Amino acid sequence: MQVFRTTGAGGPEVLAPEARPDLTPGPSELLIRVRATALNRADLLQIKGHYAPPPDVPQDIPGLEYAGEVLAVGPRARRFRPGDRVMGLVGGGAWAEQLTVHEREVLPMPEGMDFTDAAALPEVYLTAFDALVLQGGMRTGETVLVHAVASGVGSAAALLCRAMGVRVVGTGRNAAKLERTREWGVERTIHVEGTPPRFAEAVREATGGRGADLALDLVGGDYVPETLEALAPQGRVMLVGLVAGNKAQLPLGVILMKRLRITGTVLRSRPLEEKIALAQAAERHLLPLFRSGALKPVIDAVVPMRDIREALTRMASNETVGKVVLRWD
Amino acid sequence: MQVFRTTGAGGPEVLAPEARPDLTPGPSELLIRVRATALNRADLLQIKGHYAPPPDVPQDIPGLEYAGEVLAVGPRARRFRPGDRVMGLVGGGAWAEQLTVHEREVLPMPEGMDFTDAAALPEVYLTAFDALVLQGGMRTGETVLVHAVASGVGSAAALLCRAMGVRVVGTGRNAAKLERTREWGVERTIHVEGTPPRFAEAVREATGGRGADLALDLVGGDYVPETLEALAPQGRVMLVGLVAGNKAQLPLGVILMKRLRITGTVLRSRPLEEKIALAQAAERHLLPLFRSGALKPVIDAVVPMRDIREALTRMASNETVGKVVLRWD
Repeated sequence: MQVFRTTGAGGPEVLAPEARPDLTPGPSELLIRVRATALNRADLLQIKGHYAPPPDVPQDIPGLEYAGEVLAVGPRARRFRPGDRVMGLVGGGAWAEQLTVHEREVLPMPEGMDFTDAAALPEVYLTAFDALVLQGGMRTGETVLVHAVASGVGSAAALLCRAMGVRVVGTGRNAAKLERTREWGVERTIHVEGTPPRFAEAVREATGGRGADLALDLVGGDYVPETLEALAPQGRVMLVGLVAGNKAQLPLGVILMKRLRITGTVLRSRPLEEKIALAQAAERHLLPLFRSGALKPVIDAVVPMRDIREALTRMASNETVGKVVLRWD
Repeated sequence: MQVFRTTGAGGPEVLAPEARPDLTPGPSELLIRVRATALNRADLLQIKGHYAPPPDVPQDIPGLEYAGEVLAVGPRARRFRPGDRVMGLVGGGAWAEQLTVHEREVLPMPEGMDFTDAAALPEVYLTAFDALVLQGGMRTGETVLVHAVASGVGSAAALLCRAMGVRVVGTGRNAAKLERTREWGVERTIHVEGTPPRFAEAVREATGGRGADLALDLVGGDYVPETLEALAPQGRVMLVGLVAGNKAQLPLGVILMKRLRITGTVLRSRPLEEKIALAQAAERHLLPLFRSGALKPVIDAVVPMRDIREALTRMASNETVGKVVLRWD
């Protein structure tokens, strides 16, 4: 099989194609022929050497999500058959023509969806679903503050909120990209300029003075204290990303008096049983919304796998809206 | 009825006795003859003018907990009868001979307990029970880090942990008081000296490198970042007090990678339905542990109500271990 592997630490130029032996599924695993994969910000960190992959995945093959078809099943696997179209998250190794994955971590592709759409789906939608619904307890009628709402996870969060009857107030630093978020149902956008960021007053104004019930924070740094000011009593913050920095001075009195809850979360390092639990919850509660058309992947571009280095450079530019998908031809 | 009221803002000297008209219970309320009450740190803040009471309680009569007997019941009250011995939390007004309280906020006194023991119980035990069990999700087999473990809430937390099969690692700044906590089942104490406080390494060492599953933080300030370092993956912090300060620089990367959860909590400002829910949960799940003898009030001193000013000065000294109780003679 062909793979793209890192030949050292650095920028996209450290990636190189290589032929590797075909894989064999373990007893409860599927062998999957990857048809498409997609890029994530974590990939840039990983190829720079700043984000070590978990120990149970190929250390030199990045790639966190895939769509493809089942080539073979292990002797104890029961859920899928060869030829089934599947998709999912992995801790690494998705920039390859083949993957082996525990069958309970694998999601069936929504009927009628093609591989390049399906490959754009797992990371952003499972992240948003897990953070907002499973951990954040998001409920109909609430208002959710989504930072970086024009990003991949931001778009998934916005569409998921709309599908669940939840109002979104979204922030971003790029006015043109923010404009695009209207088509995902984002009712109020706040264009953030300068440092420290200022948006709490605008959020309170957009919520009749009450503040947001839940915040999906993909930014971190000095967004966090301002987010706490933007929340309603008993508001929750899901801390998912730290592109603006990994330290912040927090107003503890606000946390206490408003009875706020801050939860940090990351998918990649979770143990198998938690990854399976997320996949099963998503199959039950998230995938039906793709079948009904309420959710859809937001795709910036689909490029051939051989152009992965250019694709990474494009993602790093921050000019993309939605996912950059790679297809094996 | 007699009350102790504030005559201005300041230290204990602003409290003065006064005669007020007797009270009448509302439709679903009880009229309670208060036999004993107790002191809390929040009282010192309130009489200084730094902690305004909620709008639905007497603004000039402090006092957050009571034990006494039912004098009369409102026409729709069904749970208690005159003569019943009761106790509970109130948002204020407990430094008086009479109180009116919604009947569903009232707890029956454990059989055989006297008024001065019962008055020492509500604030510390309901705070610890709510923070650790109801919000913190504390479960048998876990290790809990309790800051200021020799304090009133600290002692209640330690005894509650022991009763539930939970191991306690406790911190404090007074070695003599820490020694006392052994009798409440605190297995490991950490004497904290200097600023910023250092205890994370000792907590990890006491937990085989894993860290604590849950922390009850009554201190705040620069204890918070060190607490995050002391937690196990998916650890939770309940932020209940801020005597060390209301700001802190937090390591967001640690929160995210260890998937930590920080929750601020305060009882006093909650709406009626939440106060009732807490009282009902405590009656069901906490009071049986007093009847069995597993829990007991920890009392520093019982003094007559007329000596309340001296009693406040004593509490402010930080030399007390357990509650300072006041009795009406």
